[in-house]
Amino acid sequence: MPSDRLPRDGGVRPSETRTEMTWIVMPGQTNALGTVFGGQVMAWIDVCAAVSAQRFARCTVVTAGMDSLNFRAPMRQGNIAVLRASVNWAGHSSMEVGVRVEREDAITGERTHTSSAYLTFVALDSRGNKVRLPTLSPETDEEIRRHHEAEMRREARLRHKEDVKNRRAAR
Amino acid sequence: MPSDRLPRDGGVRPSETRTEMTWIVMPGQTNALGTVFGGQVMAWIDVCAAVSAQRFARCTVVTAGMDSLNFRAPMRQGNIAVLRASVNWAGHSSMEVGVRVEREDAITGERTHTSSAYLTFVALDSRGNKVRLPTLSPETDEEIRRHHEAEMRREARLRHKEDVKNRRAAR
Amino acid sequence: MPSDRLPRDGGVRPSETRTEMTWIVMPGQTNALGTVFGGQVMAWIDVCAAVSAQRFARCTVVTAGMDSLNFRAPMRQGNIAVLRASVNWAGHSSMEVGVRVEREDAITGERTHTSSAYLTFVALDSRGNKVRLPTLSPETDEEIRRHHEAEMRREARLRHKEDVKNRRAAR
Amino acid sequence: MPSDRLPRDGGVRPSETRTEMTWIVMPGQTNALGTVFGGQVMAWIDVCAAVSAQRFARCTVVTAGMDSLNFRAPMRQGNIAVLRASVNWAGHSSMEVGVRVEREDAITGERTHTSSAYLTFVALDSRGNKVRLPTLSPETDEEIRRHHEAEMRREARLRHKEDVKNRRAAR
Amino acid sequence: MPSDRLPRDGGVRPSETRTEMTWIVMPGQTNALGTVFGGQVMAWIDVCAAVSAQRFARCTVVTAGMDSLNFRAPMRQGNIAVLRASVNWAGHSSMEVGVRVEREDAITGERTHTSSAYLTFVALDSRGNKVRLPTLSPETDEEIRRHHEAEMRREARLRHKEDVKNRRAAR
Amino acid sequence: MPSDRLPRDGGVRPSETRTEMTWIVMPGQTNALGTVFGGQVMAWIDVCAAVSAQRFARCTVVTAGMDSLNFRAPMRQGNIAVLRASVNWAGHSSMEVGVRVEREDAITGERTHTSSAYLTFVALDSRGNKVRLPTLSPETDEEIRRHHEAEMRREARLRHKEDVKNRRAAR
Repeated sequence: MPSDRLPRDGGVRPSETRTEMTWIVMPGQTNALGTVFGGQVMAWIDVCAAVSAQRFARCTVVTAGMDSLNFRAPMRQGNIAVLRASVNWAGHSSMEVGVRVEREDAITGERTHTSSAYLTFVALDSRGNKVRLPTLSPETDEEIRRHHEAEMRREARLRHKEDVKNRRAAR
Repeated sequence: MPSDRLPRDGGVRPSETRTEMTWIVMPGQTNALGTVFGGQVMAWIDVCAAVSAQRFARCTVVTAGMDSLNFRAPMRQGNIAVLRASVNWAGHSSMEVGVRVEREDAITGERTHTSSAYLTFVALDSRGNKVRLPTLSPETDEEIRRHHEAEMRREARLRHKEDVKNRRAAR
Repeated sequence: MPSDRLPRDGGVRPSETRTEMTWIVMPGQTNALGTVFGGQVMAWIDVCAAVSAQRFARCTVVTAGMDSLNFRAPMRQGNIAVLRASVNWAGHSSMEVGVRVEREDAITGERTHTSSAYLTFVALDSRGNKVRLPTLSPETDEEIRRHHEAEMRREARLRHKEDVKNRRAAR
Repeated sequence: MPSDRLPRDGGVRPSETRTEMTWIVMPGQTNALGTVFGGQVMAWIDVCAAVSAQRFARCTVVTAGMDSLNFRAPMRQGNIAVLRASVNWAGHSSMEVGVRVEREDAITGERTHTSSAYLTFVALDSRGNKVRLPTLSPETDEEIRRHHEAEMRREARLRHKEDVKNRRAAR
Repeated sequence: MPSDRLPRDGGVRPSETRTEMTWIVMPGQTNALGTVFGGQVMAWIDVCAAVSAQRFARCTVVTAGMDSLNFRAPMRQGNIAVLRASVNWAGHSSMEVGVRVEREDAITGERTHTSSAYLTFVALDSRGNKVRLPTLSPETDEEIRRHHEAEMRREARLRHKEDVKNRRAAR
Repeated sequence: MPSDRLPRDGGVRPSETRTEMTWIVMPGQTNALGTVFGGQVMAWIDVCAAVSAQRFARCTVVTAGMDSLNFRAPMRQGNIAVLRASVNWAGHSSMEVGVRVEREDAITGERTHTSSAYLTFVALDSRGNKVRLPTLSPETDEEIRRHHEAEMRREARLRHKEDVKNRRAAR
């Protein structure tokens, strides 16, 4: 059972968990074609999402999983990577963080959406036990829409887990 | 249209793409609880899968995406991380690589399965154009089962893409 | 003489150069007392400022110098480092970027101002020649105050340079 | 005197200590000619050998030394580095690990043997005291040959140490 | 109040704190023009100065600040960076370290002075309390000149701090 | 055949190739016992030796090999690592560099010799062809002794190579 923690009055607004991370793509992070390794982008996504989750949970958080991720456009050496994360949904001790990754051309300033990621984090105390999360209070239309979509993704994840379990049992 | 490349006679067997990566979890890669960052594991997964994809395609490969990923058990400082990858499925210019991640306790030797990942890679020539892939020839029962499951995942990915497109159009 | 480049109509507003960088202080970046190395913070400051300068100049920028820097409070492992930069002042081919560094306690959320830095960047084209910068157009009271203070710092820098030259000549 | 530890029944077979490490040579690890730094390869060798030694000793191991090492062929950016290690010989508390380094051309798949290294490790408990090692049980012809050659190298090392000591005494 | 520590007899000579650091500028540390990032040089300066301060204080030291820094010439990939630091001045618990950075052309051997930095460090014991420093005993003309100039910089720093405080109060 | 290069008049003195590198052992570079990885020390040795070889050859150098290396004492987190290298011997296109590694206790200042390494480097031009080296001119007794010992090591290396070749032929 999650250890006790008082939720803040009226819950936490998603905007309070908003996190922005900016980075320049450096030579050591690119392949023979000059495009950044997918795994490097994943590592950036995880750090940005973890800060957002910490800002909501105000305790240690660990990545429980990430939804499927597509790279829609390559990021090149010298490009500016801009990541923005916020908490979309929160349950008793787990939460969903959404991260939007954009590539900014340093010369033209043009911004391109390169990927969107949805990660699940679990909140833990210093002994590694689950912590009860505060309430998330979406207020704007955008925040409510994201909360709703996160709920649908959560249901899809649970269904998918069930499917995998059944398929394994059937083998 | 993919540029021309002669497939090797009789295709490539999945075992020829098998890649193993072993790593020790170092202090700089862990959080306050001494467990490795999720993003670090993702970065390892991407490198291991990329080598496997290169061994199949024999050209530059870029990560197109990764299926949903769950971390079933934490990896701690001092643990040995063992990653094993091989190509499960290949189409004209894209392929699926499966990666199994295990944590090995350095003292007891106990092995724990911590995550399984499925990544899609695209093969490119030096100008960044798509390259026609050789044929994949699964032979053992295990290889045939993996190939079949990869095909089902591919269909699920295409359906999911269609769904997202329709939902966006409906908004 | 700087090569020609058309300034954007009406100049660039400082808010268009605003850059935010968020980072978690990791174990590999701290000393025996668990506080981050000063040089690591300087490296973060330089990257954040460089992105801001690039967003103004829209070309390659190189660090010409940094004003004196004081660390007012230590940053510890697990703290969140938040850096915010924007261009304060711009001349023909050099500009001043201000960076504010804050430490955020991941558990309490408390924010502490740990240092303020002022860096000078020079804009260069691909052959390393100086590039003529667009006009900076401060509009809000805050932007105008920063612009004014940056001008005073610039004069102080020129006076300081003159002093050093004279003292050397007098030796 | 080494602290007590029960050897596993019938000893450990060299194949149980087999460790494979695969890595892509990245841009940040190469010199002006595009070939990887010798020291980087040595660092990879040490990690791969340490994992192998840990798999045998099942405790903390520290590098005591490395035999002379020759780089027979350069490794270039984009090449795949494949390292394979296993324990060749074990005494009371020290052991020899052999590492074979191969360069794999990512495009042609051609494998080239670039170096062979022999490292000595010492097994320690958590207080830094020497630990009694299990017995090594070479079984195949190959394992027995390696064990025999390792014994000859060990004798050569002891003779060399004696020589150095005598030469120093004679000065 | 600083905790007690016996100063060494007759004080420490600046030459005993002399520290030299040599490094090759690697591909992963340079921008699109092939010149090293300013922040990377700052990080090197801080490490070199910290070692010098430790050699004087013989306890943990933390960077309190750095005077204004100018990059007089770029450092390129393949250049050798040579940093030399020594303690110029010491008070009760803080000290000034001077660092001279030179770029050495690996092919011609030509040395160019690229920057001079003056950093202030504070000496701390293992609980983070200030430690009383030994006496610094400059002896050569050069050491005495540096000590004198450091004293003038220290006065300028105190005046500057006072100015900033007054200007803030006046707002 | 080595390409032509004019040796400097009267040769290069070993002291002109002297290189010093100082480094603090950081948390990310140590194992569970808090001692630095052997491979990290090897990587430092290779960089320090490469700078020394470049100062002699004044062209690109690549590591051809390293003699056997023993770690006589562990280096711990917070220790200062001091490496000193100089060229001991030079032939037509290869040279031997000696490196002495010392551990300095940051608190007591005590220095301990932890290892000595002898590396062979080959000098190459920008197309990767061997370059004719300048003459090495040892002058002091110490330099002449090192030159003599390097010659003996060179002969031992050639004998060892011959032995290995014969043993392989005999199998």
